Amino acid sequence: MLPVVMTERSSAKASSAKSARKRATPGRAAPPNALYAQSGGVTAVINASACGVIEAARRARGRIGQVYAARDGILGALTEDLIDLSRESPDTIRALRYTPAGAFGSARFKLKGIEQNRAEYERLIEVFRAHDIGYFFYNGGGDSMDTALKISQLGAALDYPIACVGVPKTVDNDLPLTDCCPGFGSVAKYVAIATLEGAMDVASMARTSTKVFVLEVMGRHAGWIAAAAGLAGSKPHEPPHVILFPEIAFEQARFLERVKQCVTDYGYCVIVVSEGAKYPGGAFLAEAGSRDAFGHTQLGGVGPVVAHMVREALGYKYHWAVADYLQRAARHIASKVDVEQAYAVGRAAVGYALQGMNAVMPAIRRRASRPYRWDIVPVPLAAVANVEKTVPRDFISADGFGITAACRRYLAPLIAGEDYPPYRDGLPAYVRIKGVPVRRKLTTGFKL
Amino acid sequence: MLPVVMTERSSAKASSAKSARKRATPGRAAPPNALYAQSGGVTAVINASACGVIEAARRARGRIGQVYAARDGILGALTEDLIDLSRESPDTIRALRYTPAGAFGSARFKLKGIEQNRAEYERLIEVFRAHDIGYFFYNGGGDSMDTALKISQLGAALDYPIACVGVPKTVDNDLPLTDCCPGFGSVAKYVAIATLEGAMDVASMARTSTKVFVLEVMGRHAGWIAAAAGLAGSKPHEPPHVILFPEIAFEQARFLERVKQCVTDYGYCVIVVSEGAKYPGGAFLAEAGSRDAFGHTQLGGVGPVVAHMVREALGYKYHWAVADYLQRAARHIASKVDVEQAYAVGRAAVGYALQGMNAVMPAIRRRASRPYRWDIVPVPLAAVANVEKTVPRDFISADGFGITAACRRYLAPLIAGEDYPPYRDGLPAYVRIKGVPVRRKLTTGFKL
Repeated sequence: MLPVVMTERSSAKASSAKSARKRATPGRAAPPNALYAQSGGVTAVINASACGVIEAARRARGRIGQVYAARDGILGALTEDLIDLSRESPDTIRALRYTPAGAFGSARFKLKGIEQNRAEYERLIEVFRAHDIGYFFYNGGGDSMDTALKISQLGAALDYPIACVGVPKTVDNDLPLTDCCPGFGSVAKYVAIATLEGAMDVASMARTSTKVFVLEVMGRHAGWIAAAAGLAGSKPHEPPHVILFPEIAFEQARFLERVKQCVTDYGYCVIVVSEGAKYPGGAFLAEAGSRDAFGHTQLGGVGPVVAHMVREALGYKYHWAVADYLQRAARHIASKVDVEQAYAVGRAAVGYALQGMNAVMPAIRRRASRPYRWDIVPVPLAAVANVEKTVPRDFISADGFGITAACRRYLAPLIAGEDYPPYRDGLPAYVRIKGVPVRRKLTTGFKL
Repeated sequence: MLPVVMTERSSAKASSAKSARKRATPGRAAPPNALYAQSGGVTAVINASACGVIEAARRARGRIGQVYAARDGILGALTEDLIDLSRESPDTIRALRYTPAGAFGSARFKLKGIEQNRAEYERLIEVFRAHDIGYFFYNGGGDSMDTALKISQLGAALDYPIACVGVPKTVDNDLPLTDCCPGFGSVAKYVAIATLEGAMDVASMARTSTKVFVLEVMGRHAGWIAAAAGLAGSKPHEPPHVILFPEIAFEQARFLERVKQCVTDYGYCVIVVSEGAKYPGGAFLAEAGSRDAFGHTQLGGVGPVVAHMVREALGYKYHWAVADYLQRAARHIASKVDVEQAYAVGRAAVGYALQGMNAVMPAIRRRASRPYRWDIVPVPLAAVANVEKTVPRDFISADGFGITAACRRYLAPLIAGEDYPPYRDGLPAYVRIKGVPVRRKLTTGFKL
């Protein structure tokens, strides 16, 4: 067990929605309802945040009325397609803690700026008003924090003040002001283990078989996931021998030289490449592959591109793997710390809303690294939205192919602990919600 | 816990090496030594078999002298590069049970027929004689069983009779006469879980994002691994919606029609494709992709080929994953049944050798499916070598895209139970052997 200290501290900077709510619902007896929605790419633990939000909201009887979820994220909010969570049993809600992906559906749907498409925001407020939504919990990454901020602002402008609280989530780990992003720790653990296991396989057969193994991981703009692979080894001869970060321009000659050296010295070479690895000019390696006879870009992602490059230049037998969705859905090997943090930010979000905060996000604050101690603090959405945190240069080794001790100190606690789901017949017993819809109140539809 | 019944039964058919040993070592006081070697592609549990062999051999004090392992499989035996297992602690040997890949090194090196390269076989006997190897345990697939058989035959011809016992191993599950092959249950479990988790990810975002997800799995000639993905769902709407087997000729039009129907009916489609999927003419899909401007075959494996095909014909947004080595190295989510069977065949191999059997392989015999009951019986290597067991037609649904109830009954018990390794700092605490070499006795080298 990790020593975990959690305090939920209010911030004087966060604006208050409490007094506003009184204005918005004159004479109302019943407390306002809460709406939860998932946004963007899902993770192994986003449902753990949902669990935190829902369990905390249910415990706030008398202050929060009904608890709803939007089906397919913001689309459900726009189209008045809400899910009645009172129809889901406490066991189901509890099981969300160990169920990956988006139980209520998520969406890749970025609301435009208010100036370009005010109608979308007005529609949201219309749906909120119809269902007496006083609290909106939006679980997503940087874009979603921006959306939540705008909703909060327009709500005030339209005389429907609403407590908008963002709940952080992204495997990319690229949100600022939080020690890490829920979802990242689990993908980091998955990638570190996959690198360790794949490398052991290659090492044991390199003498007569594959000499170069390439693992492609996610991270189009930030190399956090690729960096996590570095946890698989700590000495120069230990894999991964080469990490290709989006933050470091790819120099082919230096890269090939390094691969050759590894094969010479260690008998094999394990390469972890971020999908966002780029040439000095900024072109993605994945897109710079040759084209077929019809002018189509090659099928492969960056993994096969790099593997092929090694084969062409050095002649080594290679294998490559592309983890793709498997890495971010791998709840079977989630990080215990990640699960705890995902739950904690969900719970804290409700606490903030009940304290009257608005336009805030619960952030994880690191108190110490060894042993890891963290708590949750509110940060203003305005400071989080649309800011991207990439891997700092001093987390990447001088040669650009590995991680530093500082990076290791940062990453190591995030993959600590296992939090296995229950199993039935050899498979994880993940839960599925009933998803009973809330009866519609509006006569108007909304065209997406 | 699964009810497991194991009996080690001698077979009258297996030839006896016991009396032969007496002839081979006239007047020798010390008991003969044992040599263990790994062969071919490694698995998540081949070291569990090693653990079974070594622990059983160590317990046979007085009947077995030293226990050695060949470094890098048969190469170590040919080059007299042996590892002294007496230098490895009982804890290390015990930890092999939860350590993936080949702890002693494996090799892709198929000995030729005795007629073509008698020198290799004679060299093996020379090394065996020099180190007084009376028992040879060869842990591999069909080719290795053939090699073990030939060694046993030539040993007898050269007046150096040796007890050769094959220890079955292959993720491909293509050995005959055994209910399954150690290594398969764990890759099956990995693939079923990966399919389940990846599909949940896709399902939760399909409305606005990826509609088709393709997972490429191993199995060049036999579709057992692809079939295991079928365990992820049991109803028509549950993924995987399409499995492409090597055993079923790929018909593009029917395939595309099915994908379109799934997206229409369920909103998304999950496809699991075996690397060995073929066109009716026999060409692999993976090789039949278009070529680039230089005439090179496209980089992708069959996963991206299939994904691209769907995109071109139907226009759906797709993602694809290639599990590659990750699937067969994934000890972190090994099947408990698989681990138990891998250990049991290793232990049984020693028992057979001590009973004087020769040229046999411990096979897993299914006594019942629900609950799963199995035991271990010896089968002659001659009946196992070079026979490939593919997925029977009645295990594949009529439309060729799924598995039948009979297949499910066969597969389900093989993925049952979890057998987690211990963890340290968030990563599995896999063991590494010291690998102290046995002092060479021969003055001659051997050129591979």
